Amino acid sequence: MLEFPAIQGQGFRNVVEDGRVTGFSFRLRNPNYRGGPASMLDGVEVVIDGERIPDHVPLWTLQGRTMTLDEMRASTDVRWNLDEPATITVPKPGGLSTGVHSLEVTIFLRRSYIPPLIARTHFRAAAKGVIVPPAPEGPIKYGVSTYSYTGDVNTTMTLEDVFAEIADLGATGIEILGEGNLPNYPSPDAAWIESWHGMVENYGLTPTNFGSWVDTTRWHDRDLTAEEGAEQLQLDLRLAKELGFTSVRPKFGVTSWDLDPHPIWQETIERSLDLAAELDVVICPEIHTPTPIKHPVTQGYIDFIEKSGTDHFKLLIDTGIFNTEPILEVSEEIEGDGEEIPPHLRPLGVPMSDFVEVLPYTHFIQAKFVEIDDDLHDLHVPWAQVVPTLLENGWSGYLSSEYEGRREPYRGRDQVRRQHALIRSLQAGAR
Amino acid sequence: MLEFPAIQGQGFRNVVEDGRVTGFSFRLRNPNYRGGPASMLDGVEVVIDGERIPDHVPLWTLQGRTMTLDEMRASTDVRWNLDEPATITVPKPGGLSTGVHSLEVTIFLRRSYIPPLIARTHFRAAAKGVIVPPAPEGPIKYGVSTYSYTGDVNTTMTLEDVFAEIADLGATGIEILGEGNLPNYPSPDAAWIESWHGMVENYGLTPTNFGSWVDTTRWHDRDLTAEEGAEQLQLDLRLAKELGFTSVRPKFGVTSWDLDPHPIWQETIERSLDLAAELDVVICPEIHTPTPIKHPVTQGYIDFIEKSGTDHFKLLIDTGIFNTEPILEVSEEIEGDGEEIPPHLRPLGVPMSDFVEVLPYTHFIQAKFVEIDDDLHDLHVPWAQVVPTLLENGWSGYLSSEYEGRREPYRGRDQVRRQHALIRSLQAGAR
Repeated sequence: MLEFPAIQGQGFRNVVEDGRVTGFSFRLRNPNYRGGPASMLDGVEVVIDGERIPDHVPLWTLQGRTMTLDEMRASTDVRWNLDEPATITVPKPGGLSTGVHSLEVTIFLRRSYIPPLIARTHFRAAAKGVIVPPAPEGPIKYGVSTYSYTGDVNTTMTLEDVFAEIADLGATGIEILGEGNLPNYPSPDAAWIESWHGMVENYGLTPTNFGSWVDTTRWHDRDLTAEEGAEQLQLDLRLAKELGFTSVRPKFGVTSWDLDPHPIWQETIERSLDLAAELDVVICPEIHTPTPIKHPVTQGYIDFIEKSGTDHFKLLIDTGIFNTEPILEVSEEIEGDGEEIPPHLRPLGVPMSDFVEVLPYTHFIQAKFVEIDDDLHDLHVPWAQVVPTLLENGWSGYLSSEYEGRREPYRGRDQVRRQHALIRSLQAGAR
Repeated sequence: MLEFPAIQGQGFRNVVEDGRVTGFSFRLRNPNYRGGPASMLDGVEVVIDGERIPDHVPLWTLQGRTMTLDEMRASTDVRWNLDEPATITVPKPGGLSTGVHSLEVTIFLRRSYIPPLIARTHFRAAAKGVIVPPAPEGPIKYGVSTYSYTGDVNTTMTLEDVFAEIADLGATGIEILGEGNLPNYPSPDAAWIESWHGMVENYGLTPTNFGSWVDTTRWHDRDLTAEEGAEQLQLDLRLAKELGFTSVRPKFGVTSWDLDPHPIWQETIERSLDLAAELDVVICPEIHTPTPIKHPVTQGYIDFIEKSGTDHFKLLIDTGIFNTEPILEVSEEIEGDGEEIPPHLRPLGVPMSDFVEVLPYTHFIQAKFVEIDDDLHDLHVPWAQVVPTLLENGWSGYLSSEYEGRREPYRGRDQVRRQHALIRSLQAGAR
């Protein structure tokens, strides 16, 4: 699917020719109700951060052909279809800086059925676009969780659109929610599994983490047993392996405000460790606010790792635990304990020194965040501490974006791009 | 694709059992970020037009199984997937009246990973839904143009979603825009043509009218020739025939504020009439505001029909010509002649007596409209005059919805349902 706004968030980037940045480009959805011959296009005026580029200057790419306005007017066999965005390329030596830019366009189009004096009609659109720099080389790898696009998936994005979006922003890892992204879970059909592997190959992404739930309140009249828990986890381990994932995050039911996991957690894991080893898939319980690192829950997992000596049970850190500010605007309302700000929205402010201690046990990081503003300032997560901590301690693995802010369509896509722009800049030492 | 709002517009209807209306039903998109076992659903409270239905009363249909809340809680193998809406059925003898209703829901869901005291979480949603009565038997047939869903198509609707939407509201005709809905126009591939016929069959729709454009300003430095015009029209006639359409509307370029068609129109038609007869496809020029019926343009077409004696050139009436009020809010801004309200938005108020005169020449009616309010009142088109005029004069053919109001996502779908509710009520004499 295309994005509803005429200016697409996907495809906004600097243009590199012979190793030099010569301009920027972006994609436009045809704002008209019909497609039409490219010869009827009469230019596009672009205003980038207030700087006006006249309508005859940008180049147009349609159906794989890049043309000047004059070439387009003279074209006889090129069309701007409704289902294919045009790529607009604007010359600008040095291109655009990393981050959020203001972009306005006026598209001119001759329409024969409108009286001659006004038949050169225009469509106007404005948007903010994010320039995301390439991912720096290094031990930190960049991924995105489909969770970031909750609400968009199945309404404005197919799963293939998710792959295209992640690849377009230069990330390499895709994290999914098992019972969420697998059609007919837990029994996806063979054709779907084949299409999954096709997308992995076509978009060049690596399956990273597979979200699993051990629903201890699945039955309304009794708790789940450890045997049932293990059955669920093993089902997900096998599905994850079949799709190429290398870790599974089981989300256990909890028994307290501190998110103490249900007591079946340990037996569930013990029953599943051999299978995890056989499949070489790491089981990763999640450390998530309001549970900090210095806490019996986290310590319980670490003790388990130490005692069992396993390589297939490690921590997953959700970066929400580092928040320094309360979250005031969220993806959904969940009632709290009567206090003004519910526990999971209060800043835990876990110090980097605690993080350093558990990094050796940490397999995967969900780069949870809620809002990054136009200046690439995260309102809650201190990335300027988190990223250097990872680099200085030689941690390697995936930072997987987990956007959890407001769920209006397209916002997740925009915010994930901002996060990657921010974190990659920090990693590159540019900020 | 599913609709973004949790309460889907598609699927809202009265439930008929053994010939009696026993209640109403609607569809819900899973508002959670993951799918899950149906056993964890804890009911849905429904408020319809202010009347509260307790959370244990509605029935749920998931994966083809209809269950009470108790049956659902006890279920072991039913899930609410993210890509499959639940159907909620509410008992209500006599059901709901035709028209717009206010619907609120609170969905209850146990979530194991939320602290026990608040683990019965809720999601709230509210929407307006439209009850569309079945199309009455009679000479008037009901269709919808894809134009109604401009902006939604390719962003929130696939073409198959358009078929599903039209079928769901009980219409039988589908009108398309050739260069708009045909991928790779004018050369759709064989697989697409096969899928088109598959959708026609699966959704039980009849292809009606195929929109074509004779772009007289296609070239920036000269007018289109009649030969080129005929080439375009004949291309569309053949495509239309291949897809099962029975008429083609060529939109000619114009040369005046009165929308006088470009002089090539007549030769273009003359060159194409034999092909139209051979294919048995009717060519229908459009009578569109600001051109009324009593006007040299319309008369020119009628004279052509009379003189040629052809059965394959007839009128298409756009109901915007009957508007009694100016249009103040439109799908897109087009500059006018400097007056406050541009000519195409001023009410022409064509009288029914004029309409009666051209009905014998009229093959197809585009049921153009801009806004229908919550009381099923069209702000511009006097349907209470148009529908009886058609019935009293024994006109038969398609009324094909052409929504042309604001283009925010989902609005076209809602408005088309309102229009069908209004017109069918008028036809049934219920209003």
